[in-house]
This record gives sequence, structure tokens and C-alpha cells, in this order.
Amino acid sequence: MFIIGELINGMYSNVRKAIEKKDKSVIQKIASEQIRCGADALDINCGPASKNPKEDLPWLVEAVQEVIDKPLSLDSSKPEVIEEALKVTKNKAIINSTTADLEKLEILVDLAKRYHTKLIALTLSKKGVPQNKDQRLELAVQIISYCVEHDFPIEDLYLDPVVLPVNVAQAQQKDILESLKEFKLIYQIPPKTIVGLSNVSQGTLQRKLINRTFITMAISLGLDAAILDPLDKELMDAVITAELILNKQIYCDSYLEAYRKK
Amino acid sequence: MFIIGELINGMYSNVRKAIEKKDKSVIQKIASEQIRCGADALDINCGPASKNPKEDLPWLVEAVQEVIDKPLSLDSSKPEVIEEALKVTKNKAIINSTTADLEKLEILVDLAKRYHTKLIALTLSKKGVPQNKDQRLELAVQIISYCVEHDFPIEDLYLDPVVLPVNVAQAQQKDILESLKEFKLIYQIPPKTIVGLSNVSQGTLQRKLINRTFITMAISLGLDAAILDPLDKELMDAVITAELILNKQIYCDSYLEAYRKK
Repeated sequence: MFIIGELINGMYSNVRKAIEKKDKSVIQKIASEQIRCGADALDINCGPASKNPKEDLPWLVEAVQEVIDKPLSLDSSKPEVIEEALKVTKNKAIINSTTADLEKLEILVDLAKRYHTKLIALTLSKKGVPQNKDQRLELAVQIISYCVEHDFPIEDLYLDPVVLPVNVAQAQQKDILESLKEFKLIYQIPPKTIVGLSNVSQGTLQRKLINRTFITMAISLGLDAAILDPLDKELMDAVITAELILNKQIYCDSYLEAYRKK
Repeated sequence: MFIIGELINGMYSNVRKAIEKKDKSVIQKIASEQIRCGADALDINCGPASKNPKEDLPWLVEAVQEVIDKPLSLDSSKPEVIEEALKVTKNKAIINSTTADLEKLEILVDLAKRYHTKLIALTLSKKGVPQNKDQRLELAVQIISYCVEHDFPIEDLYLDPVVLPVNVAQAQQKDILESLKEFKLIYQIPPKTIVGLSNVSQGTLQRKLINRTFITMAISLGLDAAILDPLDKELMDAVITAELILNKQIYCDSYLEAYRKK
């Protein structure tokens, strides 16, 4: 599993304050901790309160790059903000994210191609949140077709089925999980899949339990990547153990420690 | 999920001693605790040390039935022992278990029909433990064919893919999990599936973590039943939450307590 740490996000007050004060040390500490706990990459989002995201996102990227050498996922709804951050990003980046809307795909696939990045695509459109598996598959086909037609490498595409909270969209969870398996069947090169995990437990009282149960189920259905909190030790233990069961890491008695030291 | 509590088993020293002393109270306490923690049924096994299983198994059944009114899974490799216990069992019982060998099926399907019980069938034969998914499916077909030909209701059959320890059969875990899904495709009436959970973590240092991760994955692939330790609270929390995500219990903030009170 490709783990993208979610904690550098201006919606968290410590990050928001650090951005306001341009205090690199807070950001760098959060970056290093996430990597130490097993993240392979970091999501970078300056948050909705940022008054100047075109400055704040590149600042976050540069602060993080001073201490860690991992891929960064540039997270903004504004392509021009993502582009400013791409200009200073050293490693192959991940654009987070496009939707299935043509006007979004036109801009973001072009951006991903010009900067040779990976691209997260939500099976979402202006019509709203998909209500079942068929709608997700239809949007996934639109995304993949656009990428194939415009020579964007499917190997660099991550499809996100759009995880919804279990307390408001309980009947959809099975469809969301099954979408992960069925996305792989759409094209001769199976696209990778990703989820933004924490949404599944929004507004519930058992957030951590629901998060780690959902991702374990998703991994058994072939999930490739997730944006999550790598500091949640029990969550990471579940991810590592699910991967062990799928034979993606060789068993040893200390397999949890071995994974984290990798 | 149909949860069968595993703790009344003579391989545990407290149970073995209680059988030797014919101390009902120990057995009854273990029975009641398992039901209180969410078990739907109880496995009853007098263990390999029993010198007189044809007396011990019926004694265990009668002791349990004095305090609880749930189905019992009669667990012995000897059909004549199971039959002695069936003679005193009140609720619809579960025979645990037959293999795919014809001589076993002949005796145990006949017994299950005569006593109107459910039947657990291991995809296992005299040739040994199956080494991959295809061998499991082949044995499952043999079992189902025999049951159909001999008018044993498939609704009462539980197929067990034979769970192996992850530390010795790591490469097989994916096949075992996928078997659960594919068993359902063999016959027009999808057979139910079951696992003996604790075997997956035999000899490992992270037994509980591996148990609850494996069963969460199995549930996402359609598992119907499991023999497990219902007193392991985190295991039961994982099972309940996986079922919640699959919409088998309506969400409420206190869904864990609601399940246990059901």
C-alpha cells in the first residue's frame, strides 16, 4: 500500500497557525513524524482559511522538502494553486485532484502531463456525488477514456471512488468497496485505486475503529493507496497486517517493526 | 455473521479439568459468557485427552443446555461420538465436521439428515491439505455434488476453506480468502462459508491483531460464519464494524452496544 499522510492540512489549527506565522519547524515536525510512522508520501493542503494559497502551498512544499525526500500530493481545488506548488516540487508529485468533469480533466490532465506527475481522479462530477456503483463505474470510464485519448499514462492514475460517511450513506459502503475491485476491470492496464479514508467515519463516535475496519476491507478488495493519518498506530498495524496476509511483506515475528523500518 | 464460540474445548485446561471432575458450573460459566459477548452458537469439543468422548460430549451438551438456549456445534472427528451428543441435543445442531472424502460424507451427511442438523464441511481430503484455490474449489464441488445427490439441503451446509497459519502458509492466504467468494458461485443456491479463525495466527506473536484483520478481510469477501473467541472484545468490535459497513446492522452511535444487546 502506498500511504499518503494527511496531517499537513490547513484545516488543522496547528498547521493553519504555522502557515500564518510561516513557522517551518511545526510543519517539518509533522512531516517527519508521518514518514517515521510509515507514510510513503505526504498530502499538502493549505486549507480553506488560507488567504493566499498561491504563496502558502509552495511555502509548505519547500518547508517539507528541507527535511524529507518523498513524493508530495498537492491538494487544492484550484489548478493555478497546484501549478505554483509544482514549480517548486522536487520529486515526482501527485495532483490531488481532478473530477470526471471535462473542464477539470482538460486543465488537470494537461498539468499532470506537463509536470510528469501522478493524478488522483475522483469519480465525481458537477451532477453531484455518485449514488451507486454503476454511477462510479460510468465516471471512472469517462476519466480513463480521457486519459487514454490524451496520452496520460494510466500507470500514473489513481481512481478514488469517493468515500462517504457510514452514518449518512451506509447503504453505499458495499458499492464503494466493490468499485475498488471493478475499476480494475475497465481497462487493459488496471488503474490504481485510492481512498481518502477519514471521510468514512466523519461524525461517528468510533472513528478509529471504523477507519481501520474499512481500510482492511478495502485492502482485501485490492486498494492500492490511501490518504490517512499514519500516526494512528492501530490503523497502521491493521494496514501492515492486511498486507502481510496478502503476502506483500514476508512474515517474520516482528513484521510490524520490520515494515516501519523499511 | 453467525458467530460460534470456540471456548468449550477440552484442549483448554480449565475445560479439561471440568470434564474430569464433571464440574458443570465451569462449563456453564464459559457458555454464558460467550453468549453475553455476542456468540450465536457454541462449539462443543471434549478435546483429545478425553478417555470417554461418547460420555463426555453428551455431558458437555447437557451441562450447556441447562443454562443457554442456542444452537450447539458438535465437534469431534468421530461420527459415533457426535451421534451420542446428537441424541441429547435440543436445538437444531451443527455437525463439525466432515471432509470431502466419500467415506466421511457417507456417514456424516446421513447423520446430518437423520438428525436434521447443519453440517460444516472442510475442503480437505485424505490426500492432505489443499495447496491452492483450485484444489479448494475442486473439493467444494465434490462436497456440494454429494449433498445435492443425497438430498441434503445446501442451505444447511457450511463450507470451510481450511484456514492455515500465516507464518507457515503465507502465500496461500489470498487463495483462502478468494475461495470464500468463489465457493458461492459453484451452485445455484450459494453455499454458506465458515472459517475456524484462530488457526490463521497459530505460532505468531500478534495473534489477536492477525485474527481480527483476517476476519475483517474475510467478511468483505462474503464470509457467513466463524468459529472464534467471542471474549476477544477487539475481535468482536471488528466483526460488528465490518458488518455495519456492509449495512447488515443499522448505524447508530452506540452500534457496538446495540449489537451485543440484540
